[in-house]
Amino acid sequence: MPEFLTLHAPEAALNLLLAQLKEKSSLEWVEINRALGRVTAIPVMAVNPLPSFPRSTVDGYAVRAAETFGASESLPAYLYVVGEVPMGAAEVLELSQSSCVLIHTGGMLPKNADAVVMLEHTQIVRQGEVEILKAAAPGENVIRIGEDVKAGQEVIPSGCRLGPAEIGGLAALGIRQVAVVAKPRVAILSTGDEVVPLEAEILPGQVHDVNTFSLSALVEQSGGTPVSYGILPDKLEMLENTARQALGECDIVVITAGSSASTRDLTAQVINGLGTPGVLVHGVNVRPGKPTILGVCNGKAVIGLPGNPVSALVIAGLFVAPIIEQRLGLSRKQPRPSVTARLTVNLASQAGREDWIPIRLIKESEGFLADPVFGKSNLIFTLVRADGLLCIPQDATGLHAGEIIEVFLAN
Amino acid sequence: MPEFLTLHAPEAALNLLLAQLKEKSSLEWVEINRALGRVTAIPVMAVNPLPSFPRSTVDGYAVRAAETFGASESLPAYLYVVGEVPMGAAEVLELSQSSCVLIHTGGMLPKNADAVVMLEHTQIVRQGEVEILKAAAPGENVIRIGEDVKAGQEVIPSGCRLGPAEIGGLAALGIRQVAVVAKPRVAILSTGDEVVPLEAEILPGQVHDVNTFSLSALVEQSGGTPVSYGILPDKLEMLENTARQALGECDIVVITAGSSASTRDLTAQVINGLGTPGVLVHGVNVRPGKPTILGVCNGKAVIGLPGNPVSALVIAGLFVAPIIEQRLGLSRKQPRPSVTARLTVNLASQAGREDWIPIRLIKESEGFLADPVFGKSNLIFTLVRADGLLCIPQDATGLHAGEIIEVFLAN
Repeated sequence: MPEFLTLHAPEAALNLLLAQLKEKSSLEWVEINRALGRVTAIPVMAVNPLPSFPRSTVDGYAVRAAETFGASESLPAYLYVVGEVPMGAAEVLELSQSSCVLIHTGGMLPKNADAVVMLEHTQIVRQGEVEILKAAAPGENVIRIGEDVKAGQEVIPSGCRLGPAEIGGLAALGIRQVAVVAKPRVAILSTGDEVVPLEAEILPGQVHDVNTFSLSALVEQSGGTPVSYGILPDKLEMLENTARQALGECDIVVITAGSSASTRDLTAQVINGLGTPGVLVHGVNVRPGKPTILGVCNGKAVIGLPGNPVSALVIAGLFVAPIIEQRLGLSRKQPRPSVTARLTVNLASQAGREDWIPIRLIKESEGFLADPVFGKSNLIFTLVRADGLLCIPQDATGLHAGEIIEVFLAN
Repeated sequence: MPEFLTLHAPEAALNLLLAQLKEKSSLEWVEINRALGRVTAIPVMAVNPLPSFPRSTVDGYAVRAAETFGASESLPAYLYVVGEVPMGAAEVLELSQSSCVLIHTGGMLPKNADAVVMLEHTQIVRQGEVEILKAAAPGENVIRIGEDVKAGQEVIPSGCRLGPAEIGGLAALGIRQVAVVAKPRVAILSTGDEVVPLEAEILPGQVHDVNTFSLSALVEQSGGTPVSYGILPDKLEMLENTARQALGECDIVVITAGSSASTRDLTAQVINGLGTPGVLVHGVNVRPGKPTILGVCNGKAVIGLPGNPVSALVIAGLFVAPIIEQRLGLSRKQPRPSVTARLTVNLASQAGREDWIPIRLIKESEGFLADPVFGKSNLIFTLVRADGLLCIPQDATGLHAGEIIEVFLAN
């Protein structure tokens, strides 16, 4: 039984892997109303400026600023009201001397106007004439052409996950379709002679397939498309054949190795037979998840996860999600959603090993308490009872009750 | 022009609204592989215990613990190896006196066995006999029946958003379908004579419809189904007819009032005519978004958002998302995803008003810098350039450069 000769630190192991995976997934065009959560494949450029005409930010009177200079409550300026800007109409009004026009928020400034005086700083004196009670500086209450976006400007970089604001920004520019990165296809192979499909009744000694479902959800959550290859017996040839097919059809292959040492070695053997360079890392200094295998076969990542559902899911979060994100071209500088919370108990940890602890968050009047969910690491419901995970870094020997810590959210 | 008589604090305004909306959406059953992000409508109970048989957590020998008591490296206990537990097979082995069986991680304990000795604490002495080098306590390296979940136990409460762990937990229990809350249907009505559809070329004075797209994305992100009712002219009758249709077909109605004061009053008038009690709150003490209107018509929320795309999106995050979450039955105690970051500049704020500031996060070696994105509040790309929002609470008059603050993530 080959032992773990060198246990890699998780971060180092991940970097070793990612460095060998250069290819980004292909590009596809989607309508912007179907683009939520997708990642831009190329930068988005503005053809036209935004706004495309000078707009008022308030309800008031569009003026030539110079004609209001010196105006005050005690010494108003007097201007003729020569019209009202119609919202959304194409006709272009023009200001002659000593005149102004009524304008609404978002309305287009007339020609020669360079500022807007808010309604509350004006007073109608007689039909067609208004008192300006406050001087306006040139540009006041006006959005200039191109103040939001200049023509030709890059407005969204590539590798950006599109949220409501980005989708709104695309609409503002009149962009109907956006080029996004195709979702990476992630093959999931479940192994284990004791594992039976969800549809089957379990007999004594058998368990339902958990990993196919939890890992599919994690892949979907990370922006990939899960492709299940079913449950495979712990037989080299069948596993090899299916893994080869998966490698041909998908961008990433994930094998949940059976949890016993012999089936883990089988996974390593399969990965080495699948392509070069094969296994890069066999064993990571993390709990749960030490027996993790990271491999690269012909430019694609092939990952052997522990069979135990808790380890499989935690490790997939640490390794599979970042591989998907790299293929999407997402920046790894983006923060992982987290909350800060106050730890309820002391937690011990072995120095030199990174520990991930399931945490239940309890709402306090101010912030959250972080309460570890204890339980053997193979109990999937310890993760269900948790809201997120706490990382005890490699160089720490534990954390103290009362410490303010960061909890990475699960959902 | 009726002014805002009482400006409500955002939290108080939201509570006022939510208190009048009691109904949860209806229930529907979905396959667990389509349940990611959905919210449970009723608690999930375990019919059977998990695990359903005693399992080994290691590779080793299943023993009667009492027969290993006192065993050590210098004084091993000797046991006969009478077999190997086959993974996933139904046959039940039984331990006779002074015997043990080889067992793999996840394997079912034989009858009469109550502990497992790890392989590394054993040594084969001759064919069929093993030295036990370390005593095992009863239950050691064993998961008992029901240790993860007891039969009849509630395993997932109602109102829980299903993530990868929950979906894995359902699979572990052999549950194929889960009862979730139907996605609330959220009607989106865009108004404004200057607003034209995405497909149209814009003429001078016109702008593309932004709010339908950004709000639809926000609704989708929050767990609802957006239903667009198009762009409506600022005419009472048409707006009323469409709003009435929307109220009949959807669970929540959102009207982006044109941004000028007159069209905002139109929205309030429409809401009051639609049902009782009508407008609850007209004007909220928040920037951006002061002219927000919150109403309830015949038990359903009808919200008037400012027409300016930045205000509309920020306010939808503060009010529409929580209404959706309440209809889903989600607990409001759940944390909003956020990161802590160090503020780069001083920020002033008016006491008595809640300010939401777009923040760009800059990765440092340790954590993030929070850099405010300045710009007039109607520039949608200020939100695009931001990673999240910072809240300056009502009672604060500002924040200092260098302060550690919390940034709520946008996507």
